Amino acid sequence: MAGNTLGEAFRVTNWGESHGPAIGVVIDGCPAGLEVSTELIQQELNRRRPGQSEFTTARDEPDLVEIQSGIFRGVSDGTPIHLRILNKDHRSDDYNQITDIYRPSHAGYAYDVKYGRHNPFGGGRSSARLTAGTVAAGAIARRIIPSTAITAYVTRIKDVEANITDHVTEEDVEQSLVRCPDLVASERMMAIIKLAKENKDSVGGIIECVINEVQAGLGEPIYDKLEADLAKAMLDIPAVKGFEIGSGFAGTRLFGSEHNDPFVIDDKLVVTSTNNSGGIQGGISNGMPIKFRVAFKPTATIGKEQRTVDSLGVETTIAAAGRHDPCVLPRAVPIVEGYAACILADHALRSRMNKS
Amino acid sequence: MAGNTLGEAFRVTNWGESHGPAIGVVIDGCPAGLEVSTELIQQELNRRRPGQSEFTTARDEPDLVEIQSGIFRGVSDGTPIHLRILNKDHRSDDYNQITDIYRPSHAGYAYDVKYGRHNPFGGGRSSARLTAGTVAAGAIARRIIPSTAITAYVTRIKDVEANITDHVTEEDVEQSLVRCPDLVASERMMAIIKLAKENKDSVGGIIECVINEVQAGLGEPIYDKLEADLAKAMLDIPAVKGFEIGSGFAGTRLFGSEHNDPFVIDDKLVVTSTNNSGGIQGGISNGMPIKFRVAFKPTATIGKEQRTVDSLGVETTIAAAGRHDPCVLPRAVPIVEGYAACILADHALRSRMNKS
Amino acid sequence: MAGNTLGEAFRVTNWGESHGPAIGVVIDGCPAGLEVSTELIQQELNRRRPGQSEFTTARDEPDLVEIQSGIFRGVSDGTPIHLRILNKDHRSDDYNQITDIYRPSHAGYAYDVKYGRHNPFGGGRSSARLTAGTVAAGAIARRIIPSTAITAYVTRIKDVEANITDHVTEEDVEQSLVRCPDLVASERMMAIIKLAKENKDSVGGIIECVINEVQAGLGEPIYDKLEADLAKAMLDIPAVKGFEIGSGFAGTRLFGSEHNDPFVIDDKLVVTSTNNSGGIQGGISNGMPIKFRVAFKPTATIGKEQRTVDSLGVETTIAAAGRHDPCVLPRAVPIVEGYAACILADHALRSRMNKS
Amino acid sequence: MAGNTLGEAFRVTNWGESHGPAIGVVIDGCPAGLEVSTELIQQELNRRRPGQSEFTTARDEPDLVEIQSGIFRGVSDGTPIHLRILNKDHRSDDYNQITDIYRPSHAGYAYDVKYGRHNPFGGGRSSARLTAGTVAAGAIARRIIPSTAITAYVTRIKDVEANITDHVTEEDVEQSLVRCPDLVASERMMAIIKLAKENKDSVGGIIECVINEVQAGLGEPIYDKLEADLAKAMLDIPAVKGFEIGSGFAGTRLFGSEHNDPFVIDDKLVVTSTNNSGGIQGGISNGMPIKFRVAFKPTATIGKEQRTVDSLGVETTIAAAGRHDPCVLPRAVPIVEGYAACILADHALRSRMNKS
Repeated sequence: MAGNTLGEAFRVTNWGESHGPAIGVVIDGCPAGLEVSTELIQQELNRRRPGQSEFTTARDEPDLVEIQSGIFRGVSDGTPIHLRILNKDHRSDDYNQITDIYRPSHAGYAYDVKYGRHNPFGGGRSSARLTAGTVAAGAIARRIIPSTAITAYVTRIKDVEANITDHVTEEDVEQSLVRCPDLVASERMMAIIKLAKENKDSVGGIIECVINEVQAGLGEPIYDKLEADLAKAMLDIPAVKGFEIGSGFAGTRLFGSEHNDPFVIDDKLVVTSTNNSGGIQGGISNGMPIKFRVAFKPTATIGKEQRTVDSLGVETTIAAAGRHDPCVLPRAVPIVEGYAACILADHALRSRMNKS
Repeated sequence: MAGNTLGEAFRVTNWGESHGPAIGVVIDGCPAGLEVSTELIQQELNRRRPGQSEFTTARDEPDLVEIQSGIFRGVSDGTPIHLRILNKDHRSDDYNQITDIYRPSHAGYAYDVKYGRHNPFGGGRSSARLTAGTVAAGAIARRIIPSTAITAYVTRIKDVEANITDHVTEEDVEQSLVRCPDLVASERMMAIIKLAKENKDSVGGIIECVINEVQAGLGEPIYDKLEADLAKAMLDIPAVKGFEIGSGFAGTRLFGSEHNDPFVIDDKLVVTSTNNSGGIQGGISNGMPIKFRVAFKPTATIGKEQRTVDSLGVETTIAAAGRHDPCVLPRAVPIVEGYAACILADHALRSRMNKS
Repeated sequence: MAGNTLGEAFRVTNWGESHGPAIGVVIDGCPAGLEVSTELIQQELNRRRPGQSEFTTARDEPDLVEIQSGIFRGVSDGTPIHLRILNKDHRSDDYNQITDIYRPSHAGYAYDVKYGRHNPFGGGRSSARLTAGTVAAGAIARRIIPSTAITAYVTRIKDVEANITDHVTEEDVEQSLVRCPDLVASERMMAIIKLAKENKDSVGGIIECVINEVQAGLGEPIYDKLEADLAKAMLDIPAVKGFEIGSGFAGTRLFGSEHNDPFVIDDKLVVTSTNNSGGIQGGISNGMPIKFRVAFKPTATIGKEQRTVDSLGVETTIAAAGRHDPCVLPRAVPIVEGYAACILADHALRSRMNKS
Repeated sequence: MAGNTLGEAFRVTNWGESHGPAIGVVIDGCPAGLEVSTELIQQELNRRRPGQSEFTTARDEPDLVEIQSGIFRGVSDGTPIHLRILNKDHRSDDYNQITDIYRPSHAGYAYDVKYGRHNPFGGGRSSARLTAGTVAAGAIARRIIPSTAITAYVTRIKDVEANITDHVTEEDVEQSLVRCPDLVASERMMAIIKLAKENKDSVGGIIECVINEVQAGLGEPIYDKLEADLAKAMLDIPAVKGFEIGSGFAGTRLFGSEHNDPFVIDDKLVVTSTNNSGGIQGGISNGMPIKFRVAFKPTATIGKEQRTVDSLGVETTIAAAGRHDPCVLPRAVPIVEGYAACILADHALRSRMNKS
């Protein structure tokens, strides 16, 4: 009811605030017998953590994960897996201001209305830091779908568009500090981020995610369509304003005869010769690659002075001091992958109930 | 688990197939004391039902709703509300083919893989007809949020874009057979749909939805963000390939300083002077209008001959005979509204638990 | 949230009131490929329906089930199964009293407080008639656990106790009009029920249920223990005031050394030489027979005059006219079995996720 | 699905094993604005913790709770509350046996079958230690229903029955080391526990729980009846074999005319002159005291030698060494209260949705 659990069969319950001592997730529904190590999880967290390069926030959080339950001698035992990540430099005690200034396009004001009282750390739960738990859970989720490859990458930063034609591997992505496999575009993306940073401003862009070797038959027909659950998971990521799958918004300009994906036989398998469907038809995966794109707005926290109001309702201005990402997309790549992994693992488990 | 229930507090469970005798929904969680009549529900169903004009399928289904429980003398009594809609001309018994031809970009193939067996009416559950139940539920959902106005309309069909600058009312929308309040564009939209129909082809487009007078504080912070639940609901509608809220994909081209919505005081209320956020910040409504756009692909069922395979895995061709919508958007307008109403009612009920 | 759904994987959503046109259930999560017929379901409903003998209410309801979705040519297709049962002689329209008299130990008063308004048919949802849907669902649930035998029977009516030492079959049970396999006790039970009926009074008693050939490993460790879900299901049956499993209340008088069930090897299988555990240890079935007992209070509706208050809060008396069961236990036997079948099927499906 | 969450609105998700570093719960759905302190929670944990007297296990676990999220300056902020309790002397690393001996009437064997592999600490999740998290959650649950008084106490140990006629307070209960307010019976209970301990044996008994000042209208009509959820919660407590409410099993011996609770007016309020219903009618609280009884079997772990098999399926014997409770009831009193508090808080929150 209070919305802190993701999934039905692979259930990730998320707790913690950026101003508290720690954050974490409890994963309920991970089958017994999977090999899971701290290293496996840490690897994904390292891709997400702050301080990786000059294109991300300078805040230093090692984001070390502790496995507190559910794994026995490197193997899941079927009980809840609790993963905890300490907040290295939280600061809830030294806060004494009575009035706060609402940052434009942040959650603070909406939180205060929702919970009926002013919380000076109101935005603490809405911090992108809270995605770390889902990324950690995603590392375990991938073990449930071991043959499936989930690869996200940046395709556009502001107006700089990448040209990506080939199959993209994680190695291709990690070559670029902004996680764009088109290294020429990558350079120009870095330049625009640097410019924004110098101007105390921020930029957004688009991340694409391709999922190969997906089992056909995942997803539920009416209200838990696979693309619907992916859309929801993506919109749950802070700063996301849009989602499109397969042909997406552009596909609306085609005639049906151009858009439909013909079924053909390829090496005795049923495949489609095009993939405008993006690997999902009628809410259910058809075995073709799943392909979707996610729109990230420019980071809301910027150093430039902006108009706003304070928690007493008085108009004022704000210029955010300190450390923040001028562009969230490089760090959002493993986040997109982690959320997608959780959704796929959930549906893979659910699909065990399809047949008698 | 099997994905036939929408919502957590206002729960809509959907049953039925287009080849069976009837379809319906059970609504669990509707508070006692709301005035609900058959007329109220029928009005929304009439906007969705087939056969409204030459721009929709000719199939004649009156879609008359029967209230079978939960309403006593015109008032909800707090128990489950069962709404049933008969299928006037279903035909499950006269079907004797052993082999079937999979329609391109339809659910039939994916269903067969999912459920492990060939069902000649496999796509029957994936029919857009199944949205009728949610539309009916949406009519009741609106009673839970009586002061909120939900208005959807067509903004683009294929390449024909409407020019919409003013506040749009339901009356504006209903003036147009294609439900586009820009009557000039509306004429051109009708022309392109007619052309597609003549060519045994189909077209898609975009629907925009604006929700005014939304209570601030709806939505949950982490995994059930209001925009995430709206995205999921929209992607649950057949033929939808994309969703964007507020500035959406276009907003990714702005600097943060351009994109952020300044808070200002207007008549003693906190509002924002722009609304790139689309009425939701950090997953929670902030009281500004919620505004989102939904991409619909061109209808998959077309009369043109297309390549495909049959259920035995043999390559063949298909040219769909009979009745189908050359463009789903006019009928999808009340569907978008109905799904959105269910999500808002669900979150309105959930918000009753926010405070002690 | 509003409590009209039973189960997590095999989900039964219940709608309808005894004063409305029909009642029913939607079963979501039934795997595809199970043979299900109207006859299969009707057979269980016939055992529960009123008017079977002089020991049950004279009200005549044929309780004919209609399958409205989810079954195609006698086989489940993986989509929701909607089962509907018409109310033959409901009478909501001819009711014009403004004040009502609350029947002692009925739900009417509590309903009015809960929903904040007086509903003259307030108890209509609490009628034991509403168990019909679960019994119907139970008939399908049994197909999910085909080798498991669920057999309930009456062991005591008021002070008349049966002597049951052997394995009991459904045939043994059905030989007795009061569903007690000890035919000597059965005669005396019928006598005490007749006496109660003549005195415009009612009696209660105990039903025992034995479940053989249960798959080991069903049940979840902490909050969804198998015995806990069975207890909940039984207490959901109207008139039930107690539940005990295995040694139950009597077992509290033993020493641990007397109560513990030694593990032994029998034909290469691990079994226990006693079964005080009742087939469940630590919340999980161990393969031994599950055995539990359910206490039913005497029927609340009686013809004798009783003190009470009316819906305006004025003290008065009531003597229920008309048809009611002087003892619910004979008809409750298939109800106990049906609810138990739903719980077992739910856990059987859930157990598919235990292992990688 | 995996059964580690209790409740729908007040959701308690439980993680940890007795052989791991810690255990804990995440509470999702606690409204903002409640005063919650470590002391409040610790007080309940202290009543449950081991080592309180010679009648409980000698194992020394301080069971200190840490609040890790959701509470800001002593007040709940509406976000998940994570409570963690360290395991002081867990020992997972020094375990090197390959074969294990299954303890009779323990969960170990059933766990191994369920999860498909032998886990030497298989019973670790089934330990009564895992109830600590629910007790901690119960302390917070009580803040949601502040005027409700939940009082449990021992009424029988083996054959020693207490004589309790008056209203019992927590002070009455805490006067007795075995938590029986009848101090004469209490002495005899201590004697029988001592005897069992000397004989390396164990005893069980019955706990009664009375809940005063319950809001009328809690509970859902069909599948989440209040008594059903209480029964389920009680059967989730390790060693529980039975539950009865109001007149319970004894009430089955009465005529309906004796059993029914007449409604009367008392000081302008509707009450019942007897309370065989135990405060709940038709699944919904009626404002009268809720009264139920819970049967606990004798502790399964005993020092006496018993027959059993090992994890390779070889017959052997076992005599449990070390520390264990010869009788769980004294420590189970706060556990019964804690579980009941969670259920009541859950239904209190859910009741906010009853009316429009």
